[in-house]
Amino acid sequence: MNPPPAEIGAPVAEVETPALVIDLDALDRNIAKMAEFARAAGVRVRPHAKTHKSTAIALRQIALGAVGQCVQKVGEAEVLVRGGVKDVLVSNQVVGERKLRRLAALAKEATIALCFDAPDQVDAASRVARDFGVTLGGLVEIEVGMERCGVAPGRDAASLARRVADAPNLKFMGLQAYHGRAQHMTTHQERAQAIAFAVDAVRETLEALAAENLPCEIIGGAGTGTFAIEAASGVYNELQVGSYVFMDTEYARIRGDDGRPYAEFEHSLFVLASVISVPTADRAIVDAGLKSYSAERGPPWVHDRPDVEVTGVSDEHGKLKVGPRARPLSLGEKVWLIPGHCDPTVNLHDWYVGVRKGRVETLWPINARGASI
Amino acid sequence: MNPPPAEIGAPVAEVETPALVIDLDALDRNIAKMAEFARAAGVRVRPHAKTHKSTAIALRQIALGAVGQCVQKVGEAEVLVRGGVKDVLVSNQVVGERKLRRLAALAKEATIALCFDAPDQVDAASRVARDFGVTLGGLVEIEVGMERCGVAPGRDAASLARRVADAPNLKFMGLQAYHGRAQHMTTHQERAQAIAFAVDAVRETLEALAAENLPCEIIGGAGTGTFAIEAASGVYNELQVGSYVFMDTEYARIRGDDGRPYAEFEHSLFVLASVISVPTADRAIVDAGLKSYSAERGPPWVHDRPDVEVTGVSDEHGKLKVGPRARPLSLGEKVWLIPGHCDPTVNLHDWYVGVRKGRVETLWPINARGASI
Repeated sequence: MNPPPAEIGAPVAEVETPALVIDLDALDRNIAKMAEFARAAGVRVRPHAKTHKSTAIALRQIALGAVGQCVQKVGEAEVLVRGGVKDVLVSNQVVGERKLRRLAALAKEATIALCFDAPDQVDAASRVARDFGVTLGGLVEIEVGMERCGVAPGRDAASLARRVADAPNLKFMGLQAYHGRAQHMTTHQERAQAIAFAVDAVRETLEALAAENLPCEIIGGAGTGTFAIEAASGVYNELQVGSYVFMDTEYARIRGDDGRPYAEFEHSLFVLASVISVPTADRAIVDAGLKSYSAERGPPWVHDRPDVEVTGVSDEHGKLKVGPRARPLSLGEKVWLIPGHCDPTVNLHDWYVGVRKGRVETLWPINARGASI
Repeated sequence: MNPPPAEIGAPVAEVETPALVIDLDALDRNIAKMAEFARAAGVRVRPHAKTHKSTAIALRQIALGAVGQCVQKVGEAEVLVRGGVKDVLVSNQVVGERKLRRLAALAKEATIALCFDAPDQVDAASRVARDFGVTLGGLVEIEVGMERCGVAPGRDAASLARRVADAPNLKFMGLQAYHGRAQHMTTHQERAQAIAFAVDAVRETLEALAAENLPCEIIGGAGTGTFAIEAASGVYNELQVGSYVFMDTEYARIRGDDGRPYAEFEHSLFVLASVISVPTADRAIVDAGLKSYSAERGPPWVHDRPDVEVTGVSDEHGKLKVGPRARPLSLGEKVWLIPGHCDPTVNLHDWYVGVRKGRVETLWPINARGASI
């Protein structure tokens, strides 16, 4: 792990760059807003830790009412449980005996569930849970339009649910019905249509489960782009939102139900960079590139400088175009970049630098960084 | 730092996934081939550690004749010097008093040089070097067609070189003339044209330097896509090649001088992934996504399976399309992925799993991972 890029109490001007900075006021408002929304809508929030990879943020979410955390990987679950999180859902398939053993070991300390979309996996998890003398929760993942993992909704799903319910040391918990692709569809109407399809798939499956007398405790899914739609569906009862804590340009590019840029949440995550070269009046180069932010969804935006645009990214450089009437950038000047895609950006850094009122208030280790196994 | 994904001596089948795997035979051949080329061409090799971020690989390159290493960041230089590398060039601007101090401290243990493209930076580095009682080497970075950092070639460059030469505790070392954009131009002819432009810029600058009586010890640049062109130019004497140790799909997509896919070097770097879901006959999902490989230059290729294609990547998943007549993929099966872009892929991992003859031979920490400051 690299040393932190700042000292607590220092002014932001003294943060070494590139650094991953959180505006703590904005983060707190985002977490509170989602908590308040869920309370009013009568659904639970189980935020996704794949976004923040940090025990510190997980515990803040839980303090405001989140029922636990989602993760994608056993390694992430280990970090959270070690840090005091008591209820973790692996919203993914876990394949391999050793990974299942690590997960079963965690079930001695916390409530642990995982997803299934294949009978063999149910049997493997059951065997391992029995060896460890623990119970693992099991959700059946259904295909809801994303074409990634998941069994067909309806009878196929119910048959797999039956297998979970009957397997020793597993407890059938419900359905995993996440539509990832829907999160980034541009218009609200497209997203609503996609989630309507997902809701139909859930309903069809619930009917088949009712015929088997298999009730669902969890019907989970939803992301930052669609959570209000799932919450209003009458079938989903757990929101697995992740990016809402930070926002990114990918979410800022979609449109709300009023047709305007989606602004439910504030940008609270920034890559702080410094200008290291000003070769021409209209060009400045900063010290943050592909190793400081993820760019497969486009380059970062420059915060609060609409007249400055990132026009090129390489491994350790960002190329900025300075508009003709813009205030020029000077050597050493700091620039706040809003990442294109927050989850893989976070995974590049070892530390969050939490700032409030222009000062470094906290340093949080990104303690599940790289925990992909 | 996460635990290593394998045990030394174990068969590859037991490596936990996702893992970053090196084919050690291919790596050794790549390093030897470049060393041999440089010897025959009469130029030096100073490989770029921003690619591998590993002392272990740096020392292997040096054992075969490399004169030292390039880095982009002070943090990378610290890791290398701590690991025994005696000659490090920061092929980049270093802005900020604290970073310059860290660099000056390294100059007590190793030969250290950095690049300049602004007079203020020359003065700042000179001041710090004097404080530390050390000498820092200084290269003038010139613009050679990349439009990133660098001063204009010719008189501007010579004037900055004069300032370096006259500055206390700095030693003028030569020119940094790297054309990054040229590396990935598709045809050999395009690359040759771009480097011809760079060579002209170097020549023009050398004439201006001769008028100032300022000889260059280093004229550095070149990358994996163009090194043979710079080597044959008669002006470049140091090759700063990085990706040749690993290759990636970005380099495999360019064409050689025979018009065929560029195959100077072998793919030695792979992201080993496992199939975690087979929802349909033509679709398989693996456990490696954007947190295991960089995808801004396109998705990874599937090694040795031309009938299987990565058609989608998300944070922790890769979606594979299995061709109609292909052998199907099964749950738990391992897949070797060739990353689109090796440098940022390496930066995601904590360990190299070095394999030879189907067994794990070594585990190398990627000890400059995330050292972006």
